[in-house]
Amino acid sequence: MATPHDTRFSFGLWTVGWTAQDQFGSASRPAFEPWEYLPKLKEAGADGVTFHDDDVAPFGTDEAVREKWFTRFKEVADEVGLTVEMLTTNTFGHPVFKDGGLTSNDRSIRRFGLRKLLRNVDRAAEFGAETFVMWGGREGSEYDNAKDLHAAHQRYAEGVDTVAAYIKEKGYDLRIALEPKPNEPRGDIFLPTIGHALGFIAELEHGDIVGLNPETGHEQMAGLNFTHGIAQALWAGKLFHIDLNGQRSIKYDQDLVFGHGDLISAFFTIDLLTNGFPNGGPRYDGWLHFDYKPSRTDHVDGIWDSARANIEMVTMLSEKATAYRQDPEVQEAFRTSGIFELGESTLAEGESISDLLADRSAYEDFDPEAAAERNFGFVRLNQLALKHLIG
Amino acid sequence: MATPHDTRFSFGLWTVGWTAQDQFGSASRPAFEPWEYLPKLKEAGADGVTFHDDDVAPFGTDEAVREKWFTRFKEVADEVGLTVEMLTTNTFGHPVFKDGGLTSNDRSIRRFGLRKLLRNVDRAAEFGAETFVMWGGREGSEYDNAKDLHAAHQRYAEGVDTVAAYIKEKGYDLRIALEPKPNEPRGDIFLPTIGHALGFIAELEHGDIVGLNPETGHEQMAGLNFTHGIAQALWAGKLFHIDLNGQRSIKYDQDLVFGHGDLISAFFTIDLLTNGFPNGGPRYDGWLHFDYKPSRTDHVDGIWDSARANIEMVTMLSEKATAYRQDPEVQEAFRTSGIFELGESTLAEGESISDLLADRSAYEDFDPEAAAERNFGFVRLNQLALKHLIG
Amino acid sequence: MATPHDTRFSFGLWTVGWTAQDQFGSASRPAFEPWEYLPKLKEAGADGVTFHDDDVAPFGTDEAVREKWFTRFKEVADEVGLTVEMLTTNTFGHPVFKDGGLTSNDRSIRRFGLRKLLRNVDRAAEFGAETFVMWGGREGSEYDNAKDLHAAHQRYAEGVDTVAAYIKEKGYDLRIALEPKPNEPRGDIFLPTIGHALGFIAELEHGDIVGLNPETGHEQMAGLNFTHGIAQALWAGKLFHIDLNGQRSIKYDQDLVFGHGDLISAFFTIDLLTNGFPNGGPRYDGWLHFDYKPSRTDHVDGIWDSARANIEMVTMLSEKATAYRQDPEVQEAFRTSGIFELGESTLAEGESISDLLADRSAYEDFDPEAAAERNFGFVRLNQLALKHLIG
Amino acid sequence: MATPHDTRFSFGLWTVGWTAQDQFGSASRPAFEPWEYLPKLKEAGADGVTFHDDDVAPFGTDEAVREKWFTRFKEVADEVGLTVEMLTTNTFGHPVFKDGGLTSNDRSIRRFGLRKLLRNVDRAAEFGAETFVMWGGREGSEYDNAKDLHAAHQRYAEGVDTVAAYIKEKGYDLRIALEPKPNEPRGDIFLPTIGHALGFIAELEHGDIVGLNPETGHEQMAGLNFTHGIAQALWAGKLFHIDLNGQRSIKYDQDLVFGHGDLISAFFTIDLLTNGFPNGGPRYDGWLHFDYKPSRTDHVDGIWDSARANIEMVTMLSEKATAYRQDPEVQEAFRTSGIFELGESTLAEGESISDLLADRSAYEDFDPEAAAERNFGFVRLNQLALKHLIG
Repeated sequence: MATPHDTRFSFGLWTVGWTAQDQFGSASRPAFEPWEYLPKLKEAGADGVTFHDDDVAPFGTDEAVREKWFTRFKEVADEVGLTVEMLTTNTFGHPVFKDGGLTSNDRSIRRFGLRKLLRNVDRAAEFGAETFVMWGGREGSEYDNAKDLHAAHQRYAEGVDTVAAYIKEKGYDLRIALEPKPNEPRGDIFLPTIGHALGFIAELEHGDIVGLNPETGHEQMAGLNFTHGIAQALWAGKLFHIDLNGQRSIKYDQDLVFGHGDLISAFFTIDLLTNGFPNGGPRYDGWLHFDYKPSRTDHVDGIWDSARANIEMVTMLSEKATAYRQDPEVQEAFRTSGIFELGESTLAEGESISDLLADRSAYEDFDPEAAAERNFGFVRLNQLALKHLIG
Repeated sequence: MATPHDTRFSFGLWTVGWTAQDQFGSASRPAFEPWEYLPKLKEAGADGVTFHDDDVAPFGTDEAVREKWFTRFKEVADEVGLTVEMLTTNTFGHPVFKDGGLTSNDRSIRRFGLRKLLRNVDRAAEFGAETFVMWGGREGSEYDNAKDLHAAHQRYAEGVDTVAAYIKEKGYDLRIALEPKPNEPRGDIFLPTIGHALGFIAELEHGDIVGLNPETGHEQMAGLNFTHGIAQALWAGKLFHIDLNGQRSIKYDQDLVFGHGDLISAFFTIDLLTNGFPNGGPRYDGWLHFDYKPSRTDHVDGIWDSARANIEMVTMLSEKATAYRQDPEVQEAFRTSGIFELGESTLAEGESISDLLADRSAYEDFDPEAAAERNFGFVRLNQLALKHLIG
Repeated sequence: MATPHDTRFSFGLWTVGWTAQDQFGSASRPAFEPWEYLPKLKEAGADGVTFHDDDVAPFGTDEAVREKWFTRFKEVADEVGLTVEMLTTNTFGHPVFKDGGLTSNDRSIRRFGLRKLLRNVDRAAEFGAETFVMWGGREGSEYDNAKDLHAAHQRYAEGVDTVAAYIKEKGYDLRIALEPKPNEPRGDIFLPTIGHALGFIAELEHGDIVGLNPETGHEQMAGLNFTHGIAQALWAGKLFHIDLNGQRSIKYDQDLVFGHGDLISAFFTIDLLTNGFPNGGPRYDGWLHFDYKPSRTDHVDGIWDSARANIEMVTMLSEKATAYRQDPEVQEAFRTSGIFELGESTLAEGESISDLLADRSAYEDFDPEAAAERNFGFVRLNQLALKHLIG
Repeated sequence: MATPHDTRFSFGLWTVGWTAQDQFGSASRPAFEPWEYLPKLKEAGADGVTFHDDDVAPFGTDEAVREKWFTRFKEVADEVGLTVEMLTTNTFGHPVFKDGGLTSNDRSIRRFGLRKLLRNVDRAAEFGAETFVMWGGREGSEYDNAKDLHAAHQRYAEGVDTVAAYIKEKGYDLRIALEPKPNEPRGDIFLPTIGHALGFIAELEHGDIVGLNPETGHEQMAGLNFTHGIAQALWAGKLFHIDLNGQRSIKYDQDLVFGHGDLISAFFTIDLLTNGFPNGGPRYDGWLHFDYKPSRTDHVDGIWDSARANIEMVTMLSEKATAYRQDPEVQEAFRTSGIFELGESTLAEGESISDLLADRSAYEDFDPEAAAERNFGFVRLNQLALKHLIG
């Protein structure tokens, strides 16, 4: 997202395709054939579409029919000009996966889950996807004794490494992106946050092609700062994909339109994606993917209102963020607040620890009382951002 | 904690020494000299004591006086038989650290913070501590633009790596343990959870001697499962130290007595520490360290009531956990629930991906409907644990 | 619940009858006919059963069939000896109620919702229920502008008052119990907590027959203390019914077995229900109703394991609580902590404000520094409770 | 706040006067004499100032000195043109109040607390304040057995009723406003939310002069919707005062600048305060009071940057809200979404319950399937608001 016009937007088929059956009620909208959503998605501003295997052909569909549906879907996608940029696998919907796909206590289910994943890898490659998202929504527990927690991490790693090894064996140009979530539908999900997934990847054999697909609302469900999270992922070279949506505080997974949750956070997320870090560093240049749900109170028109609203929010926020960064007053405030100073290393180039210890100005002659009086001016800096945001 | 009688308990000096000044009120208990707490700590059941540099000699104490106090403290600790097993550095209390010690936007403060840390490393080595805890309570922000988030991670890594390099240079037998916390006193603290710290360590140059000091309540402040968290840390070989305490749901950092928060979680934490994972794997054999606060409503007597309560809770829970694990009905329930089955690798030994793909029983001939009917019996298993806990 | 043997346990039909379809997956258990659950419920220890209208005859069932099913249900309930103690109305499942039943922005839907409620009032009376629970799960919004918030409260009050007026008109021996919940399935539900419902009832015309049906997990979803909540409801004379279950911290509505969430909180809830307030006051003598869900990972056997676990938890906790209260050491600790002293009024009997102002010992001669040194001993008192709980 | 130019802004003296000592660190800013803040407050745009008794003269100040300071403070306030619109009493800071002021288990402390309150009532009347805020920050517990919860509510009611009776006795033109907060500094505070306080007031003898002073962040600390909350308070005729500030999700009490937390929520709060409910109803016409904290990272300049930012945010949001409401497209969207329709009573004027039951169009002939297809268009409506907010 170097500049807004380079931005490529994509949507999960399950987002606009959600018929709004939820935990407490039945569907409020009709279901259409998978490919019927595509022209409207394009019209709403999408450049790409993504899906779970079972979104196109429901679990258990006869093989011949299944192939026909996938073919049809790809044809229509090509026709309307939507790239299939990412695929993901449903290892959570069918009750066979009630205790997980890769970490189910039942080994035969783990083997089945792995096979379902591997065959979807082939599909991803066939469809030219760049990213293979893995959300282990059922990998977890409600009770702490329901899992051998060491074995669970072993099996999870075994599963992801097997998928990664298969990608390498086949020579596919595909990267895996893990999607963390703290809870729901399980009481506690493994890899609950961006951090846990980063720590997990570091232990993998094939971690080089495994990164993250963080989702705005999932981090916010744990009260965590999404922009901080994706920044750490970028710092670690692991921001492979992104799921944008909205969440209002800690509660069930809301999947609101991006920006309809914590707006200030959304602004700074888009600022980071549009303008990068103030002192440079790694940039995210992948797709902006929306993983949201049209509200159950809205009918079919509301699907497309909300799809457009996502893109509109990113576009507006990106313009605001660009103006904010280019504002000389903001640049001056950055200097006052020490934003650029944090870009300087703490030890000088070539300075050894002994040098630091010998530098009396760093400690013995340093006046902490005087230094403590620095006005970092963070409130003013934030207010400048807000004036750009809503001014 | 292979068996309860091997357990070594330690307390932060700042725990029993907390005079109960809080955000909304002044101290409710008198302050004693640092060494005056030691005999009573020993009497309460402690085997070790830990401290921040400034707990023994307040920030700014004249050097000569400072040395005298540390000497006195060590003498008394030796006298009463308390091991100084861990040291930690206060880079959060003085206003000079108001924007952090290692990630302050002010470079001169970062250099000062680093020097304060390095000289406390020397003290840790001098006192024979095994662990050097780093809690970066002020490393963070309230506003997303107050930090270049990439530079912040760079500086944080530079700081920790410098401390680690210094330990190696000096040949000290000391390991660093990072302590994650999601927020408070900063709006968002860097390395907010066990996971983020694990991901961070994986990027360090000297990560081999850097691990974690997770705190029960800190993970629970983000609604995360503490036992899951330390299990991932153990799996990654990074559980270097542990802070036990109590927290009741998501709110400010309560620092209650261990077990006085989420009791079921406390039971499973102690089960893991006492009995290990059901299928074997890495064990924690370090100190059980309490980082709690005697309630402000209690006076001096309450300090020691609460100190004893921590040890009593661990002891009671450890006995319960042992009986629970040894109960044949529980072992049978483990089998029914597939706890041991999760210990088996998903691919058989020597099985290749091609072999898995060729195994029709794993997919083509697998009956997901039948497999979905397995009764994992997790509620029964949990109820068995609770009957041991409260029965 | 004056004494444990007086306790009457009841279950919602929708609890054991939940087939475990959730937000992210399809049913993992078969559905049985409504009456087929009843013998097993009785066997599990239940004395009563409750239901939503649509639990017995799905929304839209032909009238003749509907009557047959209700008749059959009542016959079997009578046969096995289960009292139908409470009825409740489903105004949330069908998409017509997607914006609420009593506060939908669509007036024709509000009229329909009211009619559905009124006819279920007749059924409740016919079945001899004592309580008519109203959970307005869809009364709320995701966006603050989706409702005229004043009008919403007006319409909600109009709806509840109409139901109450109808009960009075018909002379039914029935009381309404409102069930608060903070969110899910709506982003923000009206009457989110016990408090909001108490405040609401105070504004009703027929508030005398309207009280509360608080649910453990619903309060805990907002981080609130359930025992504090029901205590305020008792104080206000409004604890008409109760829903016991379990929840682990702030997240989606878990509906775990009672005691499988926050165990210490569960202990004090049962202590209050079993033993009343230490200084006397109103008691709850209604049904102990479980509104929980058998875990989706468990199959049919797990339904009954979990139903029994609820009763077992209450029974164990009630015994523990009784022993705790009768323990002389606890009684002494109560005195030390001032538990009985709080039962004394602050002004003496007959003391006027002028008298208080004239009492120099109350202010002018009062020594706050000395008074501040009181050791309330709350940690010790809590530890005594925990030793009874797990000792 | 009928029109923005009528708005009167006030600040707590403790806000700009906070020297930034917090739970984990010492003060980062110097303290000035109480009256020294007043000219700068005026300059920043304030019309009024408020304070706790102890803010002007610290607890324990000699009586003669105390009077001199209050006199001086009032003189300067008059001089610079700041109205003392509200007074509040510190019954939480001194350790004597460690277990509360009105609900302390120690009766002598309750009497002392009451006397401190009563004499501050006299001061409030003397200074011409309209509102007497009572925040019971220490009324609560960490452990459920630390309080007889019935007695606690009795004592709380006794205390508030005594203060109210005294106001009436003296004929003061003063109303009490209770300030709810869920936790911090106590683990659970009594009257944790707007709702609980409304329910409590309904039980008071002198509840007619007792209302609420809700604080944005306090409700958001429980994940509750602040605008919903103040709407219920308005509906009940109990919104007597308001505390505006900012909070980012569920965590410790942040006291950020208003609008620097949940910006969308802040917009709808100001929309309600500026423009009222869409279908009319009670309006808030009191002071807009800020209860926030200048960030600890900012020095003296930051105090005034942040004070101005509060007013600037309200002003900007109020202008945006006015344009939003006047936009014909928004009005049309209101109609589509049924916002005005919710203003119509569900039963027609004069319609009896029997009439409703006889209306076949309401039930028997009503087509729920058709009605369920209504597109409420809430996402579009929210997006229209956001376009006004940031457009």
